[in-house]
Amino acid sequence: MTSLDEYHRERAQLIADDRALRIDTVNGERFSENARRADEIVRRIRKEEAKSIWAVDHNEVPHPFPGMEFLTGKNIILKTQLFDIVTKMPKGALLHVHLDLTINGTTLLALALQHPSIHIRASQQITPASIKSVDIEFRPLPPNFVHRCISLCLPTYKPDEWVPLRRAREQFDAALGGTQGFDRWIASCLTINPSDAYVTHNDNIRIWDKFRAAGMLTRGLVYFTPIWRVFIRQFLEETIADGVSYVEARINFSPKFMIGPDGEENVPHKEWLRTFQDVLPEFRESLQAQGRDGEFIGAKIIYSIIRNCSPQELEWYLNDCIEMKKLFPDIIAGFDLVGDENVLRPLKDYLPQLLSFSTLQASQGLPEHQRIPFIFHAGETLGDGSIADENLYDAMLLGTKRIGHGFSLVKHPKLMAMCRERGIALEVCPISNEILRLAASMPMHPLPILINHGVPVALSSDDPSMFQNMGLSFDFFQVLAASEVTGLLTLGHIARDSIKYSMLTTEEKALATLKWEERWNRFVDDIVRFDGVQRN
Amino acid sequence: MTSLDEYHRERAQLIADDRALRIDTVNGERFSENARRADEIVRRIRKEEAKSIWAVDHNEVPHPFPGMEFLTGKNIILKTQLFDIVTKMPKGALLHVHLDLTINGTTLLALALQHPSIHIRASQQITPASIKSVDIEFRPLPPNFVHRCISLCLPTYKPDEWVPLRRAREQFDAALGGTQGFDRWIASCLTINPSDAYVTHNDNIRIWDKFRAAGMLTRGLVYFTPIWRVFIRQFLEETIADGVSYVEARINFSPKFMIGPDGEENVPHKEWLRTFQDVLPEFRESLQAQGRDGEFIGAKIIYSIIRNCSPQELEWYLNDCIEMKKLFPDIIAGFDLVGDENVLRPLKDYLPQLLSFSTLQASQGLPEHQRIPFIFHAGETLGDGSIADENLYDAMLLGTKRIGHGFSLVKHPKLMAMCRERGIALEVCPISNEILRLAASMPMHPLPILINHGVPVALSSDDPSMFQNMGLSFDFFQVLAASEVTGLLTLGHIARDSIKYSMLTTEEKALATLKWEERWNRFVDDIVRFDGVQRN
Repeated sequence: MTSLDEYHRERAQLIADDRALRIDTVNGERFSENARRADEIVRRIRKEEAKSIWAVDHNEVPHPFPGMEFLTGKNIILKTQLFDIVTKMPKGALLHVHLDLTINGTTLLALALQHPSIHIRASQQITPASIKSVDIEFRPLPPNFVHRCISLCLPTYKPDEWVPLRRAREQFDAALGGTQGFDRWIASCLTINPSDAYVTHNDNIRIWDKFRAAGMLTRGLVYFTPIWRVFIRQFLEETIADGVSYVEARINFSPKFMIGPDGEENVPHKEWLRTFQDVLPEFRESLQAQGRDGEFIGAKIIYSIIRNCSPQELEWYLNDCIEMKKLFPDIIAGFDLVGDENVLRPLKDYLPQLLSFSTLQASQGLPEHQRIPFIFHAGETLGDGSIADENLYDAMLLGTKRIGHGFSLVKHPKLMAMCRERGIALEVCPISNEILRLAASMPMHPLPILINHGVPVALSSDDPSMFQNMGLSFDFFQVLAASEVTGLLTLGHIARDSIKYSMLTTEEKALATLKWEERWNRFVDDIVRFDGVQRN
Repeated sequence: MTSLDEYHRERAQLIADDRALRIDTVNGERFSENARRADEIVRRIRKEEAKSIWAVDHNEVPHPFPGMEFLTGKNIILKTQLFDIVTKMPKGALLHVHLDLTINGTTLLALALQHPSIHIRASQQITPASIKSVDIEFRPLPPNFVHRCISLCLPTYKPDEWVPLRRAREQFDAALGGTQGFDRWIASCLTINPSDAYVTHNDNIRIWDKFRAAGMLTRGLVYFTPIWRVFIRQFLEETIADGVSYVEARINFSPKFMIGPDGEENVPHKEWLRTFQDVLPEFRESLQAQGRDGEFIGAKIIYSIIRNCSPQELEWYLNDCIEMKKLFPDIIAGFDLVGDENVLRPLKDYLPQLLSFSTLQASQGLPEHQRIPFIFHAGETLGDGSIADENLYDAMLLGTKRIGHGFSLVKHPKLMAMCRERGIALEVCPISNEILRLAASMPMHPLPILINHGVPVALSSDDPSMFQNMGLSFDFFQVLAASEVTGLLTLGHIARDSIKYSMLTTEEKALATLKWEERWNRFVDDIVRFDGVQRN
């Protein structure tokens, strides 16, 4: 018979063996004593708030729990001390975000209202009966466009007639709330609402319909150069303010032109990127002026197109991507194919083109050190052996540097081992996955499986305008709240390593890591000091 | 640059490496050529029905999908040819089922109505307003009990007054549907309804409230010796008819007595087991009389108690279990602690008692070959590092022969490896997990992770009276429908190995496997022949 002491020794050893591959075990001694104390303080607060906040009923949320559906639980999250701490944490790099889906609907509408050229149209007159089901569209129109109608709400409104956005707002039916009603309605069309995700579109197939529709609508406003510039700046400000110091954003380059100030679709990709490149030093200077210059390392772009083009069309984009890399060598960080993997084309449809991308770059004179890596979306699916699931095999064989989502990777022991051994990080988007109904809530998310198997991960936000998870604090919070193993140290290791998995150069990474560590040390010191003050 | 041919060779190799630990790879050559042809036929049917049945709207189920919520999708499942095939498959052993929760409410009510001693009471008068929220209870009462009331629906009904069940049914308010309304109402109280699981109690915390209540109610009818005998027989008949050939059922022995024919709580555990033992030869003879004697290998009991007793009380049960093993050496197959792991006591609360169980058995003279193994529930949870999740460590250290559920095992690489190396099978209950809201639908279930990592599994039904998944066909179906990797061969390997992971002796296993293989060969031959006939 085993003695109790012996049993407890064996038990502790078994738990240690089981957690040996975790990032917080492998890099166990990396952080300071204060970091370990901060971790303990955060665990205590999490435990207290599990009872004081998450185990009691809240207005309209009768049965909350830590890690619950984000859109329902967000107002409760905002009340927690745990979230307050997480907002102050330095987050490192944001490696998976779709640039056009980053600014919330209210802000975007306010931007749009500054431009008289922006119009709106609807598939029918807006009435209390039609408002929930009508299709709408935005578009900047040329100055010579003569509108024939100033309201979407009049019986005389003809389907698909363009109305100036400002007039449509001013003339919005009082029975629908007037201008405020208009603002609420548009903001709601530009996002995913709890009733969409958890009631009417509550599975991964249906919610994509809502996602696609809101995405299309958003692009009608964002792909317009006067908005584009302000939009990028706004995105950087909000993101850096949340403690992120470096960004690799995906831009959807499938449209070959965006709309210029003249209302015509005539602005080519290089102008999109030039604007992006121009905004960076302006933004950096504004931070310097505020004494915040350590906060921003930089931003790059992953050239992305929708995975519905033909293999021949892909060739055009690959060549275009190389051309953009030549023009903006410090901006272009990778190439990707995006969109719903379950219904659009799998990577294997494009094998000849993707396999020759490297030689194409050489033949076009891109020097070795400037070669554009693949950073593929793959496995963003519940499928087991489906085309979306099998994209993981192709992403890996094609030499992807990271994997966008990789939600289904946990089903693949060999691929998990390869990610671990080769340092291929998964860009894990917890809130996106939950709202797009891959996981019904955070406790169902496979992230702990990945962490415990030593698969590298970088936490990401994906589409904050859709999910209302601006920055990285909300995603970090959901991960922290839903586990009793993962702690502040785990999040610290993940944030620090996000820089390592970025496409920065070795020297840039060293500098960014150094700056991150300075901020991290201040962060954990503050937690310890504040806790000491509170307890005395 | 890699050639396309070379790429495809590498791709095939990578997929093969990734699937190298799967049961259908490891035992790849075990089955006949016809089995492989049947597997292909089943894959073809699955693919066809994914379009013809699962991609079209059905009455009241506007957006179905393969592996969808079982209680909503059940009527669609019954229309598929895939299900028809699965019902005919030999399933091997059913290793995880709670005996008292196996017979559906309608059948159980019909049994109860044969016994005038059975009474019902309610926490208030039953009216259209109260019927949804009222608490009810059943109980057989002694013959000398004088009831004062013959209806639950009269304004004169006093809370908690006992009414004879038959009278309560006869006198049930016509406004509530009369006797038919009564039958529907009772059946609904004895099960989990789609509105409970998917609307009102739609998370793992809340659904347990409903589960507990329905379970308590059921036990008021089942733990009554005249019903107990018929109940066991009925369970065996339904289970064997579904292609299961051997059962290890858990009986909850927490109550020390059940109610006898005299209406008194005075029938001790040995009588429960004697009845069980007596039913087996009767059932076997009835099968022989029908020429079906190969279908039934046998049935055993896992002695289980609810994990809420004190460690001192556990000692009584462990001694009792040993005594029962001496009286019924061929019936008692193991010991377990059951109930909601998230809120009841963890295994580590009972370490001194559980660690000494083996020496206790020796000191009480149980011969080595009759030692009672632990077959523990563990990890039936969404928790990450919670007490329920950590039960897995203790179950393993205490030497469990199998794991009941092990839902959270996928988070534990070391424990997964131990299960694989030591042949510790998980009793995976797909439909139970989904209805108890550990997975929102089958595509979210971790089973493919377990299979691909080579963790042994036995598919089980858990509580068919609650989940309406009698036998094993529904659970097998859900697993088959929700994957494009798992096929009929996979299910065949799992079914065959369920015998290997049972507590039968080596000789019994050999015989059971032989009989299973005969049935399997007939089964796959029939699929191939029938498909040939259809296509000609």
